[in-house]
Amino acid sequence: MKTNEKHSAFETNLDKNQANYAALSPITFIQRAASVYPTRTASVHGNTRYTWAETYTRCKQLASALQAQGVQPGEAVSILAPNLPEHFEAHFAVPMCGAVLNSINIRLDAEAVAFILQHAESKVLITDKEFSHVVKEALTHLDQKPLVIDIDDPYWEEGELIGELTYDAFLKQGDENFTPFDVQDEWNAITLNYTSGTTGDPKGVVYHHRGAYLNAISNAISWGMGQHPVYLWTLPMFHCNGWCFPWTVAAMAGVNVCLRHVRADHIFNLIKQEKVGYFCGAPIVLNMLNSADDTLKAGIEHSVNVMTAGAAPPASVIAGMENLGFNVTHVYGLTETYGPSVVCAWHEEWDEKTPEEKARLKSRQGVRAPMLDGLMVADPITMEPVPQDGETMGEIFMRGNLVMKGYLKNPTTTKAAFEGGWLHSGDLAVWHADGYVEIKDRSKDIIISGGENISSIEIEDVLYRHPMIQEAAVVAKNNEKWGETPCAFVALKDLDREVTKQEIIEFCREHMAHFKTPKEIVFGPLPKTSTGKIQKFLLRDRANSADDQQG
Amino acid sequence: MKTNEKHSAFETNLDKNQANYAALSPITFIQRAASVYPTRTASVHGNTRYTWAETYTRCKQLASALQAQGVQPGEAVSILAPNLPEHFEAHFAVPMCGAVLNSINIRLDAEAVAFILQHAESKVLITDKEFSHVVKEALTHLDQKPLVIDIDDPYWEEGELIGELTYDAFLKQGDENFTPFDVQDEWNAITLNYTSGTTGDPKGVVYHHRGAYLNAISNAISWGMGQHPVYLWTLPMFHCNGWCFPWTVAAMAGVNVCLRHVRADHIFNLIKQEKVGYFCGAPIVLNMLNSADDTLKAGIEHSVNVMTAGAAPPASVIAGMENLGFNVTHVYGLTETYGPSVVCAWHEEWDEKTPEEKARLKSRQGVRAPMLDGLMVADPITMEPVPQDGETMGEIFMRGNLVMKGYLKNPTTTKAAFEGGWLHSGDLAVWHADGYVEIKDRSKDIIISGGENISSIEIEDVLYRHPMIQEAAVVAKNNEKWGETPCAFVALKDLDREVTKQEIIEFCREHMAHFKTPKEIVFGPLPKTSTGKIQKFLLRDRANSADDQQG
Repeated sequence: MKTNEKHSAFETNLDKNQANYAALSPITFIQRAASVYPTRTASVHGNTRYTWAETYTRCKQLASALQAQGVQPGEAVSILAPNLPEHFEAHFAVPMCGAVLNSINIRLDAEAVAFILQHAESKVLITDKEFSHVVKEALTHLDQKPLVIDIDDPYWEEGELIGELTYDAFLKQGDENFTPFDVQDEWNAITLNYTSGTTGDPKGVVYHHRGAYLNAISNAISWGMGQHPVYLWTLPMFHCNGWCFPWTVAAMAGVNVCLRHVRADHIFNLIKQEKVGYFCGAPIVLNMLNSADDTLKAGIEHSVNVMTAGAAPPASVIAGMENLGFNVTHVYGLTETYGPSVVCAWHEEWDEKTPEEKARLKSRQGVRAPMLDGLMVADPITMEPVPQDGETMGEIFMRGNLVMKGYLKNPTTTKAAFEGGWLHSGDLAVWHADGYVEIKDRSKDIIISGGENISSIEIEDVLYRHPMIQEAAVVAKNNEKWGETPCAFVALKDLDREVTKQEIIEFCREHMAHFKTPKEIVFGPLPKTSTGKIQKFLLRDRANSADDQQG
Repeated sequence: MKTNEKHSAFETNLDKNQANYAALSPITFIQRAASVYPTRTASVHGNTRYTWAETYTRCKQLASALQAQGVQPGEAVSILAPNLPEHFEAHFAVPMCGAVLNSINIRLDAEAVAFILQHAESKVLITDKEFSHVVKEALTHLDQKPLVIDIDDPYWEEGELIGELTYDAFLKQGDENFTPFDVQDEWNAITLNYTSGTTGDPKGVVYHHRGAYLNAISNAISWGMGQHPVYLWTLPMFHCNGWCFPWTVAAMAGVNVCLRHVRADHIFNLIKQEKVGYFCGAPIVLNMLNSADDTLKAGIEHSVNVMTAGAAPPASVIAGMENLGFNVTHVYGLTETYGPSVVCAWHEEWDEKTPEEKARLKSRQGVRAPMLDGLMVADPITMEPVPQDGETMGEIFMRGNLVMKGYLKNPTTTKAAFEGGWLHSGDLAVWHADGYVEIKDRSKDIIISGGENISSIEIEDVLYRHPMIQEAAVVAKNNEKWGETPCAFVALKDLDREVTKQEIIEFCREHMAHFKTPKEIVFGPLPKTSTGKIQKFLLRDRANSADDQQG
């Protein structure tokens, strides 16, 4: 008789027990950092420094105070704050009382904040004076108001304290010897992140302990981080939980260098002062650093690693960073995948390529991150993988441990997102022969002209190569004859020269097929989301509005 | 009504599915390495080099051939071989057909090998000419013989081919396009490692996919390994699956530098030729390297990291390695904890200490590895943690994801090992104020003299400081008056001087309390296990035998 796996001796009397099984949870990271490296610095904010022991004690106090306030396991606690030590602490303290952390985008308006607080049914809101105006207004929209706790940052004067008590006073109510909530099921929710959704109500993306743990480690592996990285908080913690880096920094017993505002002077000064080795940011942040004064840039002697996501970094941005000696890694992901879950893993032999070729290779989105289990480009309908020919377009699909638990209180959308056993990213890409994925467009951003698919990104890439153009975005404009035609919105550099729309159209014609060339050019600044993404839906409206139709 | 976690919106309609959950398995590591870095070198053996794509193809062929031979999920496949590419491949190929890899200690005798093959009920045995003599004899003891496959290593002439066919011929039977076994449950067994048990039959320690995955990553984190480490196979793969490093090397897309025999000339040449950055070994291996000829040592320009376990490395060994520019990390663990699960994590401020103080700090076993969940020193009976005073002795206990699934077909011993929800290590240690654990003895090696506990390791530490002593081991000798007294077995260095037993006893008296001083000194070589551990049970027998009683 054949042995069956289920009746195998290897699966008999060998069950899980307390000795040989523990739920994966990032809470264990801070516990280890605090016990092994109690006196090492965990967080720096101005002249304030907390060690890992102090940070863990503060987390226990916060968790204990939240529990004493009646916060139950499986309830939400929100935070709306800059990248301060308190925001870092909340990433551990909230799960340590069994609750779910909801970090809210600081750039939202009162109505959006109110929607989130209501949808999450938050019991407590931790906030910061800088946002008191918005938060106060948001609270007026709520019937059930959360307990409001104010971070009273000594380095920030403006705004007002609007809560019941300050964060520090609240901590004092907590027990330093609090025993953290015992996470039994690693599938339990740890955080809730609302998508910045360009249309409709934002969706609440739920992360679990297992995924947070694994993505934290995946970050460290794919970046080749050693022990004790010094990490600068340029990336907002509200953005996919700072892509899970609060947990990475704890796992590696590193240093959190806090930052209220993403400003080039602060960033360069902190890189030099604190010997920052790692930071993340959208290409627009890197662009800002490139454009900074040379005196700010001077004097960096150590190695600095930058992870960038949100859009493919233009060649000029990569070149600028690398001239500074910064090593850029391009990553890609969604709120639904704990942030970046695809990485443009570098190959040593590419070091020999020309700068243009290197930039082209680096602008591709890449391959699955170490702990993502599946990545494919496939037909959006049949879900058959497309050929790896660098030409056939398909949708990007992901699967595995770096994919969200689902959308909160939204089973229909959750089910649709996971249809066929893969997460549907909504991004359109080609698959190269070497397995690297390159995004061509969001499915809703593709332009279909005379039956041909035109990638708006491909046109934008050409526009960015024009010496006068600072920023560009291309959208579909309705057209009776062609269905749609490309319409380009362009922000010019602040130079002493002028350029005409026709000159730009000519430039495009030289560099792309005639049918792809934008039929229309609109000059002016580009509208952006709170996370710095260009809002194409607004441009699409504008392109198709009566005014522009007449123009 | 209070929200209960189980009825929380965060736990409703948010279940696991194919899109957002995958079993943790090291198989995913080789799949990623082969797809992202297909042309990078995976294994080097002499002039043979396999890329990651080739290695994965060979694994698929082996898995397919095993399946075609009728190997079922949950059955064992054994291997008895040196650290060759084939041994590395087996770590992936065997689980890829759903089976359990049993890597057998190459230094065992025929009887012990036969016991293991029978107990594991192995369906296939992959072996190597060097061990044909032992394996042939072992097979004569078995009623149910496994299919025997010979690795025909072109770099090894001796021995004979004793199997049905060669490994390469067997691979040819397999399908390059084989679809690996779909691991649904990460708790399923992946490997089976027999303890070297000093008494009684060896016990079969079962590892699962989850633990193998997590320990592989824990290794990379605690060693601060970057991408593409070049790893030299000095540590036997049969030893806790080479402490899980086959999986670590795949996860980091590194290079396996293979090695048949642990010889100083080979090791130094490979370190230089292949730019080896990492290797593991018992202190005895480091000692051998220290004693090597200076010409061998010369010419290493790059950084080399060594992980050592099995015994606390003596100060002279650490100093010797560091003079070579090698960075030594001391780790500790058991077969039951996937190998080392405790690491003597270094603190930068210790760099300022004296060499003696550094060696003392480094000789401690340390703190829990990044992915071990609990470590304590506690009373063996009450399991109450001992004070962290560096003096009170207790037993080391571990718990969590780096603890084995249990012993195969041995529920009684499994239950005893996990009694009270912790793994009982059997090692006696003190707990220092900084949370670092320091082993004082195996519980069975402690000497109880006049009611006082005497650590045999403490006496050995003093003996090792004597300039004439190469190796030392202290055991309990029965004594009518005291119950037990310490008896020291000593191997002298090959010097032109002589030393008397009395001189050594005097030396001990100067450095320790009188009651701890060995009452007897025996000169001669020390018996060792196949993994290089001194066999104290033999010395204990000798100390208490009639001959020595008369002596």
